[in-house]
Amino acid sequence: MTYRFEAGRIYRMPTHFGPAPGPRQVPDGIAVDPTRSPRRLSVSASFLTDAAALERHLPEGFTLASEPVVTVDVHHMTDIDWLAGRGYTMIWVGWPATFTGRRDRATGKFLAVVWENLADPIITGRDEIGHPKLYAEIAEPRRWNGAQICTAGWMGFRFLDLAVSQLRDAAPAPQAAASDGTLMLKYTPRTGAWGETELCQVTLTPAADPDCHIERRQTGTGTVCFHAASWSDLPTLHHVVNALAALPVLEPRGGSITHARGGKTYRDQRVLV
Amino acid sequence: MTYRFEAGRIYRMPTHFGPAPGPRQVPDGIAVDPTRSPRRLSVSASFLTDAAALERHLPEGFTLASEPVVTVDVHHMTDIDWLAGRGYTMIWVGWPATFTGRRDRATGKFLAVVWENLADPIITGRDEIGHPKLYAEIAEPRRWNGAQICTAGWMGFRFLDLAVSQLRDAAPAPQAAASDGTLMLKYTPRTGAWGETELCQVTLTPAADPDCHIERRQTGTGTVCFHAASWSDLPTLHHVVNALAALPVLEPRGGSITHARGGKTYRDQRVLV
Amino acid sequence: MTYRFEAGRIYRMPTHFGPAPGPRQVPDGIAVDPTRSPRRLSVSASFLTDAAALERHLPEGFTLASEPVVTVDVHHMTDIDWLAGRGYTMIWVGWPATFTGRRDRATGKFLAVVWENLADPIITGRDEIGHPKLYAEIAEPRRWNGAQICTAGWMGFRFLDLAVSQLRDAAPAPQAAASDGTLMLKYTPRTGAWGETELCQVTLTPAADPDCHIERRQTGTGTVCFHAASWSDLPTLHHVVNALAALPVLEPRGGSITHARGGKTYRDQRVLV
Amino acid sequence: MTYRFEAGRIYRMPTHFGPAPGPRQVPDGIAVDPTRSPRRLSVSASFLTDAAALERHLPEGFTLASEPVVTVDVHHMTDIDWLAGRGYTMIWVGWPATFTGRRDRATGKFLAVVWENLADPIITGRDEIGHPKLYAEIAEPRRWNGAQICTAGWMGFRFLDLAVSQLRDAAPAPQAAASDGTLMLKYTPRTGAWGETELCQVTLTPAADPDCHIERRQTGTGTVCFHAASWSDLPTLHHVVNALAALPVLEPRGGSITHARGGKTYRDQRVLV
Repeated sequence: MTYRFEAGRIYRMPTHFGPAPGPRQVPDGIAVDPTRSPRRLSVSASFLTDAAALERHLPEGFTLASEPVVTVDVHHMTDIDWLAGRGYTMIWVGWPATFTGRRDRATGKFLAVVWENLADPIITGRDEIGHPKLYAEIAEPRRWNGAQICTAGWMGFRFLDLAVSQLRDAAPAPQAAASDGTLMLKYTPRTGAWGETELCQVTLTPAADPDCHIERRQTGTGTVCFHAASWSDLPTLHHVVNALAALPVLEPRGGSITHARGGKTYRDQRVLV
Repeated sequence: MTYRFEAGRIYRMPTHFGPAPGPRQVPDGIAVDPTRSPRRLSVSASFLTDAAALERHLPEGFTLASEPVVTVDVHHMTDIDWLAGRGYTMIWVGWPATFTGRRDRATGKFLAVVWENLADPIITGRDEIGHPKLYAEIAEPRRWNGAQICTAGWMGFRFLDLAVSQLRDAAPAPQAAASDGTLMLKYTPRTGAWGETELCQVTLTPAADPDCHIERRQTGTGTVCFHAASWSDLPTLHHVVNALAALPVLEPRGGSITHARGGKTYRDQRVLV
Repeated sequence: MTYRFEAGRIYRMPTHFGPAPGPRQVPDGIAVDPTRSPRRLSVSASFLTDAAALERHLPEGFTLASEPVVTVDVHHMTDIDWLAGRGYTMIWVGWPATFTGRRDRATGKFLAVVWENLADPIITGRDEIGHPKLYAEIAEPRRWNGAQICTAGWMGFRFLDLAVSQLRDAAPAPQAAASDGTLMLKYTPRTGAWGETELCQVTLTPAADPDCHIERRQTGTGTVCFHAASWSDLPTLHHVVNALAALPVLEPRGGSITHARGGKTYRDQRVLV
Repeated sequence: MTYRFEAGRIYRMPTHFGPAPGPRQVPDGIAVDPTRSPRRLSVSASFLTDAAALERHLPEGFTLASEPVVTVDVHHMTDIDWLAGRGYTMIWVGWPATFTGRRDRATGKFLAVVWENLADPIITGRDEIGHPKLYAEIAEPRRWNGAQICTAGWMGFRFLDLAVSQLRDAAPAPQAAASDGTLMLKYTPRTGAWGETELCQVTLTPAADPDCHIERRQTGTGTVCFHAASWSDLPTLHHVVNALAALPVLEPRGGSITHARGGKTYRDQRVLV
């Protein structure tokens, strides 16, 4: 007897060994506490760039919302329930955009690319959420000489330097009034019919995250530098890194450090049409 | 102006920075030589198990073909063109099966799960081919005391020991006459409608691989041992590893070591219906 | 002109490029703050073992002091000044002992072996202090299901599991009145005259550490398990791990978790005779 | 009863668990074959530099021998007996020098610094041989676009790029007639008396290595580039890397690739006085 998919359970490749454990589905009997897990240190820096250059990296249906400000966030997470207390680090690159679909319209952060230093959440995020996740070696953020310093690379080629310095305590960032959440594009190519699209849909993470509690926030001066690479240095990433390195930094727009605890599982992720 | 997808080019998430470089699409001007790349050391071991136990891990439309023999292959690859000469290692677990669809019928190796120690080919393989790839730490196969020894783990929990000993030179393995190639299931869950399926299709890698040249082949005694894990040890893999560890080893069915050079890019992968 | 050693500066191999930067010698102009660096999370568990078994791992001149209780401490450190804010993790294994030399006598923790997951402090510690440091893969301590969990391995063979559970807040541990500090044996073999000793001396880290500030301490139930290994699994460590695995666990003696900040550089380390 | 050192056996820190396994001492019953182990791929590149600049990195008693040519060798080793078949990679930086001591005189390669990507041989080599070994992340040499490419870094900062291109088959390199072997300086600082020297001796690896068999050798064009670093990037290595980066490259002096099998354990290492 072959197996049948159990109704209402999330599966991922390989599906042959039962429903897939992950952030949105932990085995029965495993206790999770979204008010305490994960712990998160976020280091962010932003810069103003050229609107036309940025629009070239927006998919159809999207327009820039407000100023062309790119924000790079490094989220170092620990105490992750669905990884039995382990952690990993992710880097988000995004800017404000509005999606206008046949039915839906939403404005928020357009999440252009994510890097993570663990393959497991890359797989769950790409498949279930449409997170545009790629792999990078990401150092734990370090504090030295008054600055919080973050770096990322691949096979020894460092493609990102980010730092926030001159830190001073600050109030929690007000969620921008206009934000509906985080916007991204879920995409799967078609097997065999090379160049065709199997799946292409806009997905939204709604802004609300009631279990996330900000413990401390500091603001400061932020710097971001992407290092252009040859194909030989970054054969799977150079097109992404070089596009970001080519964005002019017209003006730094500050940085911040946030310590937080708790957060949602993105079960509220939904498709916009 | 937002970007448009270029016709005939393969994209993967994130799509916003142009067509995605990968095994089936290297940038213009990059020379590849499928008769020389990759170099491959393959270490394989097989065992007879219980047919009913194995069928429980076959999806609908599949039946066991011939004996219920599980084969675990460790492929250590170097000189990979699309990674600019770098390498990685993959582990294949499969057994013989026949797929009978509405239109198509094929018999070959059913590829139940793949582990790799590099995230980049995990992403390309899952998205483009339907390879059921997961991440593992995989040691380079080592030769000691007359045996070739392979291990795999995750975050320090070793879940696989495989060895081939008593090696003797052998003729290249004849491709089993009945094989149409390698069969797998490409699957994507639906975002937001948790538990529903976005994409579920059988894909086939045809058996022919004319550029692959076997340089040396040895056969010997093979042993395979999967180690059962708690959820806390392998929170993303325990269901797969424990299912494989639960398969009874009724009889060892030998092992082999193969040195090869060259091979195809799987552009011939196709969907069966 | 060949170089000369600068007076009063610490050198290590290779000496040919100037004085060696390290925990006890940072370059001029680098600001360090021993009251804030490093941050440290320490997870400790102890067990009573057999006195005669333990004495077999004490060098000449040492005797057990009080009960034969083995303590394993996992120190996860971040914000380390001499590493420009980076961190690493070390594991200490020790038990109480008294050294009686020709001139000196001291009682404290006999530090039998140290594992670290970074080679740089292994080199500085062995050369300058006589720390008996070896390399291991050490996971960041993780919190799950109410326990703090630590593991260590080498090339994928996990040789240590340590956990502290049932945690409750506790007062800072009083430094045991009788302790003079930490005792160890600095040893260098003689090149060419294999089996002879170049250097063998007892060194002491005095107990005082005035800049170390305990921020929080919890006590609980501790468990320690060393896993015996074959030579093939741990060809450089099996003798150490197997000796520790062979110590009978007669009775658990509790565990603790300590969060601390600040500490000394061990410039007060001295040789006992 | 405390333990006694067994006569004629090599010990290293920690000495408390018996004689230390390593390249020059494997446990009884472990079969080794110096005619087959290790397998080695060596990639070398040389350049002419300024004699005065180079002499500043020679210790007392040494003079440059012949031209000031720096050679960087990357040795990728597998099938290492004393590691039960595992492997690692080392980088040697050296130049020709003559040592004139009170009694001894020898000319050969002065081994100025070694980097390795495994801590275990760093420990054995520093303690037993006087190898000036430090840790680095070293990629497996990769072959791409007709060149053999090697890189090394530390915590994501790449400090070395080396490549050999335009390869053509060549005869095995004749051991330079004048070479007595490889020269280095074994050094240990004195604990507590900071800035004083505990041990400083010149050691020699005699040139003969009868079990080493060259299987193939190619020569070509070699390029070497060391990248200068800030202290924050390489807090334990910047003095070494920056000194090498500061050596002028007056003229490239070729490169080579060598495949070899077998070799000695350095039990013939001896002290020169």
